[in-house]
Parts: sequence; C-alpha cells; structure tokens
Amino acid sequence: MKTLEWEDNKLKLIDQTKLPDELTYIYCETYQEVIVAIKDMIVRGAPAIGVSAAYGLALADLSGEDMEKAAKEMRAARPTAVNLMWAVDRVMASDDILEEAHKMAEEDMAMCRAIGKYGAELIDYGDTVLTHCNAGALACVDYGTALGVFRAAHDEGKNINVLCDETRPRGQGARLSVWEMQQENIPVKLIPDVASGYLMSIGKVDKVVIGADRVAYDGIANKIGSLMVALAAKRYGIPFYVAAPTSTFDDQISIFDTEIEERSADEVTHYGSCRICPEGTEVINPAFDIVPCDLISGVITEKGVFLLNNEWEDFKYFLEKE
Amino acid sequence: MKTLEWEDNKLKLIDQTKLPDELTYIYCETYQEVIVAIKDMIVRGAPAIGVSAAYGLALADLSGEDMEKAAKEMRAARPTAVNLMWAVDRVMASDDILEEAHKMAEEDMAMCRAIGKYGAELIDYGDTVLTHCNAGALACVDYGTALGVFRAAHDEGKNINVLCDETRPRGQGARLSVWEMQQENIPVKLIPDVASGYLMSIGKVDKVVIGADRVAYDGIANKIGSLMVALAAKRYGIPFYVAAPTSTFDDQISIFDTEIEERSADEVTHYGSCRICPEGTEVINPAFDIVPCDLISGVITEKGVFLLNNEWEDFKYFLEKE
Repeated sequence: MKTLEWEDNKLKLIDQTKLPDELTYIYCETYQEVIVAIKDMIVRGAPAIGVSAAYGLALADLSGEDMEKAAKEMRAARPTAVNLMWAVDRVMASDDILEEAHKMAEEDMAMCRAIGKYGAELIDYGDTVLTHCNAGALACVDYGTALGVFRAAHDEGKNINVLCDETRPRGQGARLSVWEMQQENIPVKLIPDVASGYLMSIGKVDKVVIGADRVAYDGIANKIGSLMVALAAKRYGIPFYVAAPTSTFDDQISIFDTEIEERSADEVTHYGSCRICPEGTEVINPAFDIVPCDLISGVITEKGVFLLNNEWEDFKYFLEKE
Repeated sequence: MKTLEWEDNKLKLIDQTKLPDELTYIYCETYQEVIVAIKDMIVRGAPAIGVSAAYGLALADLSGEDMEKAAKEMRAARPTAVNLMWAVDRVMASDDILEEAHKMAEEDMAMCRAIGKYGAELIDYGDTVLTHCNAGALACVDYGTALGVFRAAHDEGKNINVLCDETRPRGQGARLSVWEMQQENIPVKLIPDVASGYLMSIGKVDKVVIGADRVAYDGIANKIGSLMVALAAKRYGIPFYVAAPTSTFDDQISIFDTEIEERSADEVTHYGSCRICPEGTEVINPAFDIVPCDLISGVITEKGVFLLNNEWEDFKYFLEKE
C-alpha cells in the first residue's frame, strides 16, 4: 500500500481525509496542489510529508517555476514539521530535484523494510501484539515502522493477531491502523485506550510495538497515552518495543526537555460532529508524552535493535555506527 | 443535587438520558413507570436503582396493586443489578413499604456524607484531584462517593481542582462527572483517558479518588481503565483512593475471581451516532478491570478508611466492626 507515488509526472496520494470510509487517490499536477494536500492533511506523517514536499518541488521544477519562491511556499505549508524543512533543503541542494525525490522515497521504503525485518525477529509465532496510534504506511511512503514490524512478521507466516488502541482524542488507531491491517488481511481488533492494561493483566498481549516522534538517550516522545501502555507492560512483564528510524534520534537533548504541544480543546470535547460533554467544558489536551527508557525493551531501527540504557555515550556510538 | 426524590406521592427522577445537555425531571406515578425508567437508564447506578425500585414498590402499594406481581416485574427491570434484588427483597419484607424506601434513601445519603467526611480528611488545600468514570450523586440518591469526597473537600474550603477522565467507551466522566462538578461551581477540567499518566508524570495530579463496583480483601473491581490510572499513580507516588460503601465489600471471593462482563462492540465502534473506525471492525470491550490492593492507598468507606493489605482476616474484622 503506497501512501504516495510518482505516476505519469504527477504525485499520486491516498486521500487520508476520506479514510477509513473510502480509499481514494488525488493526483497533484502542480506544487501548489501539493501544498494544499499537506495543509489539508490529505497526506500526514513526518516521512510522508517530507517526500511529498520533495515531489512537489520536482513538479515546480518540471514546469519551470521560480524555485526559491516555490521552496519558500512549501516550507510554510506546515511550519512545525521539521521533516518538511529538511526535505526542502535537501532537494534544493541537489542537482536533479526529481531524482533526489525518488532517492528519498526509496530510502524511506528501505528504512521501513529494514525496521520490519529487525522487528519481526522479536515477534514469536502466534503472538498477540498491541500498538498505539498509527506508526504505519500512511505516515510513510509505504509499509510503516511499528506496523511495518507487524507486516513483516505476518509475511513471515508468524500468524500474529494485532490489537489497536483507539488513540483518543484523534482516533488514529481506530481510523488508520485498524484500516491498514484490514487491507492486508492481518487479523486485527480495536480496543478502547482504557482496556490495554486489563488485557495485559490477563495475559492477552504478548508484545507491544509503538512508533516514536523523537528518541533520546533517556527515553522517547510519542503520542499521548504511550506512557500508560508502557507502565502496564512493565507491570505485567510484557516486552515494550519502539520502532523508529535513526533520523528520529536526537543527541542534543534529554527527552524530558521535549516541549509538549497542547492541542485544541475541540479534539476532546467533540468526536467528529458529536459533542461529548457539557458546553463550555475546559480541557487539557497534551499531544505527546514521554516514555522513560527503563520502560522500553528496545528501539527497533533500520540499523538494528538498540537498548536505551540512559547512557549518552552508548547512544552516540550506536548513532554513529555504520 | 438529588438524583431521586419522593414528592407529592410521586417519584421524581433526574432524566439522565438528557444529560449533560438538559437538566429535566420525570415524575413516576405508577410502579410500571419506574420499571421503564430503570430499563431506559433514566436512572442508573446501583444505589440509585435500588432506592428507585423501593419507591416503585411503594407506588404499587399505595394503589393497591398485586405486590408479588409488582416485585417480580421490578426484579426483571435490570436482571444483573444485585442492588435491585436486595432493595426489592428488603421492602417486601418490611411492614411499611414507603417508610422502608424513605429509610433506604436516608441511609444512602448518610453513607455518602460519611464517605465525604472521611475522604475530605485525605485531601489537602489546593490539591488537584483526578477521578475516573462517575461515582457521583447521579449514581446515588445524592452527593456520591468519589465525587462526594470532592464535594466535602470543596465545602470545607479546600480550594480543590478536579480533573475528570473522559472514560471511554461510554464517556461517563465527560458527560456526568464534569457536569456534576460544574453544577456546584467546583473547578473542573476534562482530560482524555490517555492523558492522566502524563499529567501525573509532570506533577499535575495530587490525589486520585475513584469509586468501586466491588471491594474484596485483595483488590477492587471498577470501570475499565481504573487499573491504568492506578499503575501511573503508583509510578509517580500519587495516593490512589477508592471511595465505596461497605455494602460493596464482598467477603466471599478473591477480586481476581470477578467475572468481567464484555459489552457491545457498538460502544467502541461508535461515539453517539459517529462511527470511528472502518465498518465491520472487530472489538474487545471489557466493562471493568481489577485494581490489585498493592496499588491502592486506602478504601474510603462510611465507617472510615480501610487499608486493603491482602489479609482476609483484617478485611472481615473491618467489615464486622461497628
């Protein structure tokens, strides 16, 4: 399942705003259309946004646009997306923008496949595996990180069952991860976020694999709720893995210095168009939380599995190895 | 705020199906209307159902109905509600049904006030307190158990702030607990279930107080999600209290022998009328979980605070004391 693809000199994107009800595609023929797709969250997820932006600038290049202007507008599409800035800088510094965009897409796919291969080694035959949020193909070019591990284990005939947390408030688990697994006939069930601890306590979960927005030497930052899943896994002796490329590793900070974005109250007070609480209710809606490294059994990367152990030197050494 | 009240020989009930959008009352003039109110969840919560049933039989008695028939129909209104059976048996064995119903209502209110008083002693000035689900006035005749503790602390001028978990899948925290606190101008914020662990990790929660459906010598059973809140509280050294009358104490079983009811998939796949996942998604939807006693700082009862310590003898002794 390709989230984005270059086809007949157009950028073909899954329209993620229509999921899970319809699988439809849009075709971008100009860089401005790519900007709209990023702004409107037709495409989402850091790697997917980065590669889409690269292809967007390839479209600008092919039609002889003012490239500095196009790059500037592209950067402004989602100003907080670090990956978008990185992707724009990279293609702008290259000799052949389309070629560089293809290279980035291939690197992303290779990275996910490598994570899948290393991760699948940690999954046993018949395991029930749990994930939180959507670290899936839909956030990448293809395949995904945490869901890439499940795809690889499934493809190896390991007969796994997947549990997806709903992932309130935005429901990425219910909407996207469940859908991705269904597309490939991987057995999947949806659970409310509140239920994972109980299911672990009665032996119904064998492994947990989640993604990460950032990995540091002392822990990871990921979607709000990851911490509570990790605490339950620790209590019941269930391996808790993080699947993330080394591009998310940050050797400049302690993970506890991560600034946690507070998102809009509407996400909590409403579900779709349904209001779920009294009008005017005040809300706290943090987007991410921090899982400290003592709760993490390993970080599955494209270079192999790394044991976060609170040692900055080991972390640097792993990052620098070939 | 009275959930139910005897007024002019009628049973007056808050219509909980209309909350939190409207505060409206219905008046039951016959026992059959009380049965409908219980069946349709106009009134809910074990103590509230029990006392409503008692008043329902008082209505039957006043209009000269066949009391055996009325009692049988009343028992069938919600066949799994243990408290309903107990209430029907109790009024049927009494000499004056209306008098006995009044007595039960008064006992329930006195029980909640006593829990509030003992619980408030555990709350410090300026505390931010967290609760899960609705152990409130709306589940009782008045005042509530966990929310009774917050009411008492607030009335003592302790300047508390309340955080309510949304409590997926049915959202009782968002719909009912938030609303109850707002009615009495107790400062309250709604959080997604996934966020309580993070807020505890950054020192934003001082105490947790929840209710219980059942208390045994080795732990408690309560709304799904209670376990994950308790695990986070343990990790971050936050007192985790259970507020529950001794009528929920069960000296016949280990809490781990509690049968956990699996509820309908619709509760998870939909939120109100909004579907939140692909059509045909499979679901696991357990209604309750178990919090083992090592995670519980104390059980606040109408007889005082009891420390669950896995000792059956201590448990029995506490239950039997005056």
